[in-house]
Amino acid sequence: MKHKTLTTIGCTLAITTGMSTAWSDSHAKEPIQPIAPVKVINLAMAELGKKLFFDPRLSKSGFISCNSCHNLSMGGTDNLKTSIGHKWNQGPINSPTVLNSSLSLAQFWDGRAKDLKEQAGGPIANPGEMGFTHELAVDVLQSIPGYVVEYKQVFGSNKIDIDGVTTAIAAFEETLVTPNSRFDQWLLGNKNALRNDELAGYALFKQSGCIACHNGPAVGGASYQKMGVVAPYKTASKAEGRSAVTGKDADRFKFKVPTLRNVELTYPYFHDGEAATLMEAVDVMGRLQLGKTFTNEEKTKIVAFLKTLTGEQPSFLLPILPPSSDTTPRPVPF
Amino acid sequence: MKHKTLTTIGCTLAITTGMSTAWSDSHAKEPIQPIAPVKVINLAMAELGKKLFFDPRLSKSGFISCNSCHNLSMGGTDNLKTSIGHKWNQGPINSPTVLNSSLSLAQFWDGRAKDLKEQAGGPIANPGEMGFTHELAVDVLQSIPGYVVEYKQVFGSNKIDIDGVTTAIAAFEETLVTPNSRFDQWLLGNKNALRNDELAGYALFKQSGCIACHNGPAVGGASYQKMGVVAPYKTASKAEGRSAVTGKDADRFKFKVPTLRNVELTYPYFHDGEAATLMEAVDVMGRLQLGKTFTNEEKTKIVAFLKTLTGEQPSFLLPILPPSSDTTPRPVPF
Repeated sequence: MKHKTLTTIGCTLAITTGMSTAWSDSHAKEPIQPIAPVKVINLAMAELGKKLFFDPRLSKSGFISCNSCHNLSMGGTDNLKTSIGHKWNQGPINSPTVLNSSLSLAQFWDGRAKDLKEQAGGPIANPGEMGFTHELAVDVLQSIPGYVVEYKQVFGSNKIDIDGVTTAIAAFEETLVTPNSRFDQWLLGNKNALRNDELAGYALFKQSGCIACHNGPAVGGASYQKMGVVAPYKTASKAEGRSAVTGKDADRFKFKVPTLRNVELTYPYFHDGEAATLMEAVDVMGRLQLGKTFTNEEKTKIVAFLKTLTGEQPSFLLPILPPSSDTTPRPVPF
Repeated sequence: MKHKTLTTIGCTLAITTGMSTAWSDSHAKEPIQPIAPVKVINLAMAELGKKLFFDPRLSKSGFISCNSCHNLSMGGTDNLKTSIGHKWNQGPINSPTVLNSSLSLAQFWDGRAKDLKEQAGGPIANPGEMGFTHELAVDVLQSIPGYVVEYKQVFGSNKIDIDGVTTAIAAFEETLVTPNSRFDQWLLGNKNALRNDELAGYALFKQSGCIACHNGPAVGGASYQKMGVVAPYKTASKAEGRSAVTGKDADRFKFKVPTLRNVELTYPYFHDGEAATLMEAVDVMGRLQLGKTFTNEEKTKIVAFLKTLTGEQPSFLLPILPPSSDTTPRPVPF
């Protein structure tokens, strides 16, 4: 048996060390792969990024941090239909979870940022989100002695720039994976990890065609698909999707397929947040994407399967932020 | 020598076990006493309270938690002049730090809540803060299976009520003490803990009369005093202070003396947040409360002393909140 279990405080890691056994073969045949734990990390950079992720001084108001809308206490989301931004601006789209976001082919619903680093700069300078500019955010950080020292340790420079800031935030976000869900335990060979109704839900998920888009380790995040394939999706949302990036009419209402990892925690669903529950989301997906009307029993089983995708949430000490100095530009909330 | 030092991971505790030595005598003579570490705690209750403290579902919008304005990454404050509330309402007063707040004679700047439990209910139901009602907040919590189970473990009841909710939040807040500041190390006998300029600042702090109000373990928090004793304090703030509670004209502009513990982190200062820096705050206090115009050198020394009051910040894992259920009332942010 090439499988071993390491138990540490509060956390059990199941690691497959070979591919030659019956267990590994069964896992290799599945269209969903386990989330890999973080293996290579620049710890000092990730720690700096964690502080920045939690620091509302990256916003004009001094009130909104990355964690405000990608709350790591709540599945890396804000659990709102669309987000609240600077001066209570109503955002145009649902905040996607930051959990496992490093596994996506690109960032934002329309994929307009190629990676986490590029994404991290977006909200800071968006007038309706953090309402700041990169220049002013960097000025604030440069005035904080604790950040200057930590930045120099990580990047070797006394001069903070937005490139380093977003690099550090992305390094932290890359640690936000959620291994060891019950589904992954099952994939890794623990056949007792799932109940029969959950396995039946997974079978339905595959047979019905959900798996065509929701596959891979993130169970999504790997392609853009049109919202409303079989029948149009009715929404008040003005979000156009991928066409805003490509300029192609054929890409209208195409959105990045969201990850279903931790979907139990990332309600409400869809780019407009209009599906309040997983039952509703499965129903709409069946009808509009697959032309299938699931029975309540079928939906219940699929939802039972989806809830097995909740992994271990990132566990870390709440960061303590370095204080501003007398020369730090003060926030302008009102 | 009846003094011993326990070193644990990331934390050094200095514990005085007797009162018969020269060290203890010198400490006993000082008008400021060390912050005591937390000794008696209902851990399950404090853990529940921690989750509630971080849970924005206690607000109407689903966006504002206790931690929004009493941010434990930032000295238990929001570092804003006055706070941002529901729909970006501009609050009337500066958010006091939650750190060491259990040591205060009462809660809020005007002391209108007798203790932390009574305080905790205030912002939830304040239309300009969390904008909710106690009934609706309890309905939300009661619909969340994770909270129902945890509440039953702590309070023995399946039925959540606001009394239990605020009791748990207060239990968590009682853990938010900050022992082992450099000043406390000095009080406890480590004569090398302070530099000469810091000791000179402490001497000035006592000689000038600051100590008359800022004394005890919290270096404040033990009395109400008029803002503007020698000369009137000019402010656009409409806050009336203690008279709003007592109805007595003599109590106008009397506010609870704020704790100076962690004052390096709790900028800006005063009930209106109008003093941006410690230098400014010391200057205003000297002139208006004591009739003294401190020189820059004197202010610099006093500020150096004040910065020795920064203690060990509460260190804990970011809480993971139990997810809402299909029946949980959804937030109404807009």
